[in-house]
Amino acid sequence: MNTKGFSRLACRTTEPPITWLMSTALSRPGLISLAAGFTDSETLPVTEARQLFEEILGSPRTARAALQYGTTRGDAGLRRAAAGHLARLDRATGLSLPKGVAAEEVYSPERMFISSGSQQLLYVISECLCDPGDIVLVEDPTYFVYLGILQSHGLNCRGIRLAADGLDLDHLERVLEDLCRDGSIRRLKLLYLVTYYQNPTGRTTALERKAGALALLRHYERRAGHPLLLLEDAAYRELRFAGADVPSALTLPGAIDRVIYAGTFSKPFATGVRVGFGLLPQRLWDVVLRVKGNHDFGTSNLLQQLLRRALTSGLYSRHVQVLEQRYAHKAAVMVRALRKSFPAQVEWNVPQGGLYVWARLPKSLRSGMRSRFFQAALDHEVLYVPGELCYAADPTRSRPNHEMRLSFGGASIRDIELGIGRLGSTLEELL
Amino acid sequence: MNTKGFSRLACRTTEPPITWLMSTALSRPGLISLAAGFTDSETLPVTEARQLFEEILGSPRTARAALQYGTTRGDAGLRRAAAGHLARLDRATGLSLPKGVAAEEVYSPERMFISSGSQQLLYVISECLCDPGDIVLVEDPTYFVYLGILQSHGLNCRGIRLAADGLDLDHLERVLEDLCRDGSIRRLKLLYLVTYYQNPTGRTTALERKAGALALLRHYERRAGHPLLLLEDAAYRELRFAGADVPSALTLPGAIDRVIYAGTFSKPFATGVRVGFGLLPQRLWDVVLRVKGNHDFGTSNLLQQLLRRALTSGLYSRHVQVLEQRYAHKAAVMVRALRKSFPAQVEWNVPQGGLYVWARLPKSLRSGMRSRFFQAALDHEVLYVPGELCYAADPTRSRPNHEMRLSFGGASIRDIELGIGRLGSTLEELL
Repeated sequence: MNTKGFSRLACRTTEPPITWLMSTALSRPGLISLAAGFTDSETLPVTEARQLFEEILGSPRTARAALQYGTTRGDAGLRRAAAGHLARLDRATGLSLPKGVAAEEVYSPERMFISSGSQQLLYVISECLCDPGDIVLVEDPTYFVYLGILQSHGLNCRGIRLAADGLDLDHLERVLEDLCRDGSIRRLKLLYLVTYYQNPTGRTTALERKAGALALLRHYERRAGHPLLLLEDAAYRELRFAGADVPSALTLPGAIDRVIYAGTFSKPFATGVRVGFGLLPQRLWDVVLRVKGNHDFGTSNLLQQLLRRALTSGLYSRHVQVLEQRYAHKAAVMVRALRKSFPAQVEWNVPQGGLYVWARLPKSLRSGMRSRFFQAALDHEVLYVPGELCYAADPTRSRPNHEMRLSFGGASIRDIELGIGRLGSTLEELL
Repeated sequence: MNTKGFSRLACRTTEPPITWLMSTALSRPGLISLAAGFTDSETLPVTEARQLFEEILGSPRTARAALQYGTTRGDAGLRRAAAGHLARLDRATGLSLPKGVAAEEVYSPERMFISSGSQQLLYVISECLCDPGDIVLVEDPTYFVYLGILQSHGLNCRGIRLAADGLDLDHLERVLEDLCRDGSIRRLKLLYLVTYYQNPTGRTTALERKAGALALLRHYERRAGHPLLLLEDAAYRELRFAGADVPSALTLPGAIDRVIYAGTFSKPFATGVRVGFGLLPQRLWDVVLRVKGNHDFGTSNLLQQLLRRALTSGLYSRHVQVLEQRYAHKAAVMVRALRKSFPAQVEWNVPQGGLYVWARLPKSLRSGMRSRFFQAALDHEVLYVPGELCYAADPTRSRPNHEMRLSFGGASIRDIELGIGRLGSTLEELL
């Protein structure tokens, strides 16, 4: 692009590869997309939304309140409901808060932040903490849209290896030591973790891993010269269909002024309704609120009223149970198809929640956008997200090019079966 | 604040004075606020929204489409409807486009951008064009929230004097010459104009003034070394209740690659529904779209479907006619009260649209947040926006401190009468 007159941020914001994937999907109507991170269409809360809007708009008083501006900080009722909801999720895991820490303080509505999807919260947090040249630690691999935000802001990433149950703490420590050695620890701001049914690997971080990570951040703070924050992205938490829920990092000792919890109602309720939420350290809250005010004044009040009523009426929780069954089924269909069609040399996980299966081809077979396999899959009319897109541009780490993210969220049962079948035959041909 | 670990942007983003005004208003229930930029509550489109949601959610097909993610660029139907709507507004002014310029090109849905309120568009545009230290020209006075965005991004402002019918072009030229003289013209990116029933003065910019401003920008581009853009903020355009509509800057020769038109459906439809729109030069469109994608993926699809149906069904246009009568009435009530209660030494305008009356006290009487008058008004339980907040921090311009913005948008008829009466007595006491 001709960059004349644009900002440095604009020049850094290159076209995300996902745009190409999306437009490819749209331009080939016969294509089966296992790439998009869409949620299941059939279970979208049509009746629920209709009923809730009828309640809100059926009385002039509530209707007018919902159709008028709210405040930048968000509706008090929604903040209370969201805080209570999150407290119940953590309580249901059976874990108790550290001694001397009150639930009223951790899950205080005063710390609750309402955003236009959790994406906006990730953006504003990054804007408020990081200057160009600063460093953010991410999982290796991680959520690629967040990588795009970091690149746009001129931030440097270091990837931390992922074990089956979360971050490799030894590797985290080695990277922190590295950063101390060359002095760049002073530019470190944030560790970003997608802790539940991670995008893209489907892995969930065990509480001990979160605790270890937070302790390490605390330990290196003196060297950094400022607080090192843990940003827990829990976007997929409520799309759980097997196994037990894991307590959030908010339940850890010392979390209250170091952990940012980013959640969303978009995925477990309706992605067309963009309402996210977060619990923030008080120190951050005011600043993030001001920047959010500059972004958009505040999230649509009407959508906030919708979510508030969904939460307080119990419709939200009942809907999450419907999703549980549906995604369990879709995941099982994908797993069955994988077992049937994928060659034995390909490794993949059995998901317990979220929208994704992460598959690893033999290293000899590349999966990237320019690979023979990717092209052959396209020729067979099936699309996946190449694993390479999910790795940060970290000069100290190699970027694996033999993985793929397969989504069972948006595709129909038939398309999951067909799509995996086609990928299987493509693999058989090439292996 | 303790700025340790925060970004430079965060440190620059100080608490906007309006926050204090708002919390003052909320904490004193007896207070009459003529400060807030709220729209009229009684005319909010309750029946319309109810009917439209019933249509959208009444059929599983349209319901599911609306409750699922859309695309970052926005719904194609809404973009078409918004582009057509804007073309009709300009056409209705009787003006024809310059020779050789096709309406299909100017009002192309391909150039149409959907944002979460027009505020988001202002933010992303500024992010994409400006680096810290760059210069933006603004009206003197101007929309104070935009001043907050500019401050947050470390931008320098130069204020351009306002005449009764828009920008003082001689002053604009002098400022451009000044910038050439000290070389800072190379840092100039943008001229920001609120062209219809301006916030805060209520003034509307005549087409010749927009033409003159665009021509001057064009003329100085060579010295700047890059395109100089005109950002036309038309947020209040459809809140017109007297006089004729003025063609947008899009109708000017050479506008297609230099004019950004930012509009909104929030104010003329429902402020609780945050959907804005803009026509952008093609060169900017892709970049702005990418950054918007990082912000939030895209504006709530459900709200987009609501606006799309409002526009295509004609409900939107009918609603705007209802608003016309209502605001004409509210403005007349305020004008009558001003005539009755305000001392002759106070000057003010008779508005033809928008939400505001701008009043000028004798220079000896200060109106700022720390002034005796502001305090006395608070003691009389009435709140206004001090004019000083609407002036950029431009070291070459003095910041007048004897004006006030009075809003007739959100207040009830009774509160307008009472509030102006109280302000009038306060003025009588102090003058």
